Amino acid sequence: MRLPLGYRYSATYAGIRQEKRDDLGLIVSDAPASAAAMFTRNRVQAAPVRLAREHLHATGGIARAILVNAGNANCATRSQERVAQACCRALARALRAPVEQVLPASTGVIGVELDHGLIVRALPRLVQGLSAGRFQQVSRAILTTDRVPKAAFGEVPLRRGTVHIAGMTKGAGMIHPAMATTLAFVMTDAAVPPARLRRSLAAAVERSYHRLSVDGDTSTNDTVVLLANGTSGLRPDPQECLVFDEVLCWVMEDLAEKIARDGEGARKLITIRVTGARDDDQAARIARAIANSPLVKTAIAGSDPNWGRILSAAGNAGVEFDPAGVDVFVQGVQVCRSGVAARFSEHDLKHRLDASECAIRLAIRGAGEGQARFWTCDLTEKYIQINASYRT
Amino acid sequence: MRLPLGYRYSATYAGIRQEKRDDLGLIVSDAPASAAAMFTRNRVQAAPVRLAREHLHATGGIARAILVNAGNANCATRSQERVAQACCRALARALRAPVEQVLPASTGVIGVELDHGLIVRALPRLVQGLSAGRFQQVSRAILTTDRVPKAAFGEVPLRRGTVHIAGMTKGAGMIHPAMATTLAFVMTDAAVPPARLRRSLAAAVERSYHRLSVDGDTSTNDTVVLLANGTSGLRPDPQECLVFDEVLCWVMEDLAEKIARDGEGARKLITIRVTGARDDDQAARIARAIANSPLVKTAIAGSDPNWGRILSAAGNAGVEFDPAGVDVFVQGVQVCRSGVAARFSEHDLKHRLDASECAIRLAIRGAGEGQARFWTCDLTEKYIQINASYRT
Repeated sequence: MRLPLGYRYSATYAGIRQEKRDDLGLIVSDAPASAAAMFTRNRVQAAPVRLAREHLHATGGIARAILVNAGNANCATRSQERVAQACCRALARALRAPVEQVLPASTGVIGVELDHGLIVRALPRLVQGLSAGRFQQVSRAILTTDRVPKAAFGEVPLRRGTVHIAGMTKGAGMIHPAMATTLAFVMTDAAVPPARLRRSLAAAVERSYHRLSVDGDTSTNDTVVLLANGTSGLRPDPQECLVFDEVLCWVMEDLAEKIARDGEGARKLITIRVTGARDDDQAARIARAIANSPLVKTAIAGSDPNWGRILSAAGNAGVEFDPAGVDVFVQGVQVCRSGVAARFSEHDLKHRLDASECAIRLAIRGAGEGQARFWTCDLTEKYIQINASYRT
Repeated sequence: MRLPLGYRYSATYAGIRQEKRDDLGLIVSDAPASAAAMFTRNRVQAAPVRLAREHLHATGGIARAILVNAGNANCATRSQERVAQACCRALARALRAPVEQVLPASTGVIGVELDHGLIVRALPRLVQGLSAGRFQQVSRAILTTDRVPKAAFGEVPLRRGTVHIAGMTKGAGMIHPAMATTLAFVMTDAAVPPARLRRSLAAAVERSYHRLSVDGDTSTNDTVVLLANGTSGLRPDPQECLVFDEVLCWVMEDLAEKIARDGEGARKLITIRVTGARDDDQAARIARAIANSPLVKTAIAGSDPNWGRILSAAGNAGVEFDPAGVDVFVQGVQVCRSGVAARFSEHDLKHRLDASECAIRLAIRGAGEGQARFWTCDLTEKYIQINASYRT
């Protein structure tokens, strides 16, 4: 899959995390790009989140660069504002770009002072290292407890040629959809004006990052940025924009699914589909309630087809529905018909649940056409181990 | 502590659970008692919940008996209504009481047919065994994954004598406050009319069971029943009713705290206090968000004073507050001052966190006088082990 034109990438080890692996990443668009972003809705927001929002506001949605570090969230510290500003200023100087066109992002531990000197001193070699081919390196540099880097790609055939979309993301814990979740950077070489780009991003996030939960915790640093630099020379017409939106959505769904698959301690990706709700929003609320139930997630971890927990979790969604009109399927096997136990081989289903992917489907009859897909993962002892000693 | 007058208790093994220990309990008031109850708000409600609500409605709040089984929730099965009705009818006959004065309750696995014959056949020996001293036996019979029985007692000095309150409860998982949580049966020999009793119960549940979370899952069977049979011959006057309410609240707080302490897999009771919110409700929402954060709960399991997670969880409560006005204390040690790290000995605090109780306090400045206390427990590998194989 070809990368979008006109972007360069770089990563280095700045000494922010203790383990010696890249912790600083840079994405640069050679031309100023249209930029749209969504941020965490947590009341406690890290300085880079606030500063990135200010910068986008100041430029009306134009950016040249994303500067991202892992290992420290730059949040809930005395110096967080100064650190974020100093890093953006230093990078703007090095790129000869207005400081407002630099978008900062951070991920890592909260409440520990971040030494901006580490980042500022690393900037020359970071800028030096910029290359169109270092996409994967940046996707690795932004990881924290993730086991694997996560990227997704798409291409959109327009009448006059093809534009490309490439996205990277990180996240394995503290994952819960509220506006945007975790870090995600998506680049395209299509020409899309900022206002239209914001609409595209909002629609795609609604169907991807807002349909994702690992542990129900929303971070202080969640940031999703979408850049469109127009380097392809191709601008989708209104009709083509719908195709662009669709492909963008696939790319972001792909990223979101990869986060669920890599959830902290997860052995299984769980995909939940709800159909027949009054509308899509109600379907999403039911799916979210199932995805957030630790009892469902531990049952799947144990390959236990305990569908009663699925039904009970759905009942907690705060959505009106008649339990007697509900069918539940696990791995394609009907386990509940009209709200009561269906006939199925528990032994056989346990065996099927040992697979690395689990599909849960809850179908409501008689309410409407609303549907939603949601991703989460099983909850294992490993999640506890990881999080009982994250800092130590 | 003396038990309230005029109640008798009995428990037996009816063969509902596989393990041979008591799974059927009976509480009888010799005289018809005022009765108030609160039930789960889950959309999926077990037949005993629906039937108990109907019975209370039919009598206007009068009950003679509570019939409770563990090992099967009598929920999401074809026969659930018939089973609940048949058991109530059989008990009413044995007690020579109107069937509407029998309140059923069930707890256990969802979606497995319950053989009402097991219960009906056990009723003669259950009724035979009724005795004023078998309170503890019933409190054991209602347990599922609980490690210990849970009871609490109170006495209310009135001008003309003393009335007594005794409560029992069960619950260790699928615990989350929504109306009422888990099973709880509270008896008093005070004379309180049904309408007043409902007000007393609602106020006490608000400060006890609604301030309790083990895993954020609300069950299909949650039931709290309060009986007042007046056998003491003492009826609190309006002033004394306030004292009665206060003691009732202590008893129910005590029960709720015992559930959190016995949370599935829990090694530590976590008590969260939030002060300085705009009002009590906002304080409770912040406390609930902290209590429901698996990242906070795993950090406490690992004795990790990771206060950033506490602040971040508070930020997710959907409540407006200024993070710069927030102080956080863990085990009495200030870990966060005005939203940023306070100076403290991490080594020393880790040591203090090894205790079996953890106190978290979050103080907001400048918002108001709202405060709340909330109970939860740490999240350990053991919770996963218990729930990955609950049925198997």
